[in-house]
Amino acid sequence: MEFLSGQTTKEALELKELLAPERVGTEVKVNGFVHSIRAMGEVSFVVLRKREGLLQCVFEEGASALPVKSLRESQTVELFGLLEKDERAPHGIEVRVKGGEILTTPYAPLPLPIGKWKLNTSLEAKLDNRSIALRNVRERAKFRIQEGIVRGFREYLTSQQFTEIHTPKIGAKGAEGGSNIFKLDYFHRPAVLAQSPQFYKQMMVGVFDRVFETAPVFRAEKHNTKRHLNEYTSLDFEMGFIDSYVDIMEMETGFLQYTMKLLAAEYADELRILNVTLPNTEKIPMVRFDRAKELVSEKYDRRIRNPYDLEPEEEHLIGRYFKEECDADFVFVTHYPSKKRPFYAMDDPADERFTLSFDLLFGGLEVTTGGQRIHDYQMLREKIVRRGMSEEGMDMYLDTFKYGMPKHGGLGIGLERMTMKIVGEENVRETTLFPRDLSRLEP
Amino acid sequence: MEFLSGQTTKEALELKELLAPERVGTEVKVNGFVHSIRAMGEVSFVVLRKREGLLQCVFEEGASALPVKSLRESQTVELFGLLEKDERAPHGIEVRVKGGEILTTPYAPLPLPIGKWKLNTSLEAKLDNRSIALRNVRERAKFRIQEGIVRGFREYLTSQQFTEIHTPKIGAKGAEGGSNIFKLDYFHRPAVLAQSPQFYKQMMVGVFDRVFETAPVFRAEKHNTKRHLNEYTSLDFEMGFIDSYVDIMEMETGFLQYTMKLLAAEYADELRILNVTLPNTEKIPMVRFDRAKELVSEKYDRRIRNPYDLEPEEEHLIGRYFKEECDADFVFVTHYPSKKRPFYAMDDPADERFTLSFDLLFGGLEVTTGGQRIHDYQMLREKIVRRGMSEEGMDMYLDTFKYGMPKHGGLGIGLERMTMKIVGEENVRETTLFPRDLSRLEP
Repeated sequence: MEFLSGQTTKEALELKELLAPERVGTEVKVNGFVHSIRAMGEVSFVVLRKREGLLQCVFEEGASALPVKSLRESQTVELFGLLEKDERAPHGIEVRVKGGEILTTPYAPLPLPIGKWKLNTSLEAKLDNRSIALRNVRERAKFRIQEGIVRGFREYLTSQQFTEIHTPKIGAKGAEGGSNIFKLDYFHRPAVLAQSPQFYKQMMVGVFDRVFETAPVFRAEKHNTKRHLNEYTSLDFEMGFIDSYVDIMEMETGFLQYTMKLLAAEYADELRILNVTLPNTEKIPMVRFDRAKELVSEKYDRRIRNPYDLEPEEEHLIGRYFKEECDADFVFVTHYPSKKRPFYAMDDPADERFTLSFDLLFGGLEVTTGGQRIHDYQMLREKIVRRGMSEEGMDMYLDTFKYGMPKHGGLGIGLERMTMKIVGEENVRETTLFPRDLSRLEP
Repeated sequence: MEFLSGQTTKEALELKELLAPERVGTEVKVNGFVHSIRAMGEVSFVVLRKREGLLQCVFEEGASALPVKSLRESQTVELFGLLEKDERAPHGIEVRVKGGEILTTPYAPLPLPIGKWKLNTSLEAKLDNRSIALRNVRERAKFRIQEGIVRGFREYLTSQQFTEIHTPKIGAKGAEGGSNIFKLDYFHRPAVLAQSPQFYKQMMVGVFDRVFETAPVFRAEKHNTKRHLNEYTSLDFEMGFIDSYVDIMEMETGFLQYTMKLLAAEYADELRILNVTLPNTEKIPMVRFDRAKELVSEKYDRRIRNPYDLEPEEEHLIGRYFKEECDADFVFVTHYPSKKRPFYAMDDPADERFTLSFDLLFGGLEVTTGGQRIHDYQMLREKIVRRGMSEEGMDMYLDTFKYGMPKHGGLGIGLERMTMKIVGEENVRETTLFPRDLSRLEP
């Protein structure tokens, strides 16, 4: 009988192993994609692309049993040779190749010059050749940063005793109603794709008190802008036994602080590759919606057209105001007007035209929407009636409140937008692996 | 200007804080759901349900400013009093209540006796009242174990230099073709929901070498069994530069070993609540598909009806065979017939009727499907032709191979099935928060 008992050691070494000081001067075996080839007369430099970064391999004339002339970009190869220090090489090491073998060979030259440091190609070309464009070192680094953000979210919330949940994306009715819903046929019954896990995460507050989910959400919005996607990854949490909506903003501040530390510690290579300076999260200003409008109106001499709405231009100016006034990259805007928030938002008892809710702006762009929710069954039903909505399809959501719920609130963060702002991109498609928008359904 | 600088300390203490030895004998403030009330004459025991577990609060006649008679199940309350040791109480501590307040009150008595240790209710009743049923301590514990499995998957793969990816769930064409696909209208274009992230994770092997995703998948299968769902959470990984399909099984073995240790260390309370003995993952047997059929046919005197298919009953017997013969809970069955695997599966060069693929059985149930994939462009195209399939809609997938790919493979794990087998349930709906099946689209 044959058994497996875990992973076995591989002969081919990874970058981390090669960087151990005792390896220098020894013979090593390595593998990777041929990322670039530079022939300099008697010496050729072949850079391998590995999962952790680039590795320089040097072919000196006559020194390698595998001729460098047999190599081509985008082959995968296994090489062996002496590991030596070289300050000019990436990571300060290189392999003086003695031989090796070609593992796989492409059938056509690459459609994009991915071996270049910066891929100066249009966004359309990058998206049309997505699996190739992402092989560029800078392109792929953005998605390592994205991974770090999600890790930060999960690790921080886990340390704060949140439980991770998985809620269904196909349902009988949209959580927030409205028309921006994708419809599908579910075994001859009408169904919709989830716009958010809102109802489910609230229902789960009664079970685990604190819950989070990192999952796709679907919005059939006909917006064709640089900041909208029709499918995106939402980082959601919901927490019970809060004192007020401020608890939720404090939790998000804690997440942001933890995540920036995590990125600085474990994604330093990628931050360097992208030349990113991490935003300031030590102290995040908090301002009321109406006050924020006044502030930018005064400072930038801009007339307030609608006191109950925030235009993208105003969001941008609020970001600018707090950057200029207190060097803040983030700002919490609180007390959004009730009519701009969903029915489940808790109105401010001091002035019911406003809610105990907030958006987080990052460089003038909304990256989070959150707030306290209504936990009282009768208050929730009355608000549904006042909105002219129907309780139809909401029975199980409403029952949760009928049988008792604590004061609670939560938020949702758009992962791709957050990534875009951190890495300094202008279009959210740049930080989405395979974006879905009005015109793009492939790849 | 007001600023937020992270989380502030709360007066109400969590269970972990209460368990610090120096707290005993001090006055504490606590909050939670009223889980159960037991009146014993002059003394009443009120058990609070908190996110980390249960907490006993004792009301002695005349000792509390808040009368115990004002309390009801499923209220949320904040209480204060002396923290004392008591061996008979959960976690060995209790609060001798001096007063407190009722935070929220339900509008109706609970529809299920969730305060009982075991919720002896039908599965249908549990699903119809999902947000209430899950408040039972045993019911919710299953989903803490589920969280631990996902954490184990991510943490182990992250330590093995995998990168987490987020791939779209709406697409132009199903990755594996076939009829079991949910269809939807995407801005007047036909679209489908992803059956698996297969194409995308393969495309990303060329970028990050090792990738994983934990996300929902959608199968419009008309199976109405205890082990099928129409939407489930798939734990997927894909890895490049493999020597053979065995590398993938070794990686999964490593994940299982890591995860069992994580569960034992950090989910001990839940394992105890559910009375779970973790499966043996030290050595996992590996057997060929055809040999496995022979073994159970010989031992259990069962005729092989179809040498190219594995019936559920045979899977069950394979599980039983390896439990009896080598006390194994898991078994890798390798070399599935080519005609039972998707076109991208790598055929065995030694016998093309079989593939370099595997299933992992856990107690006789398939919980993983994986294997080596075809990495050669021409081989892939030829197989598509041989299958009578069309390349339509697969251009970008195929281009990935045209431009060069390493030898690679991967797998997909059904999270709800894995959870079900670990906690010893018989129906996968028991370990799905909000299951979707042929008849259930709500809650």
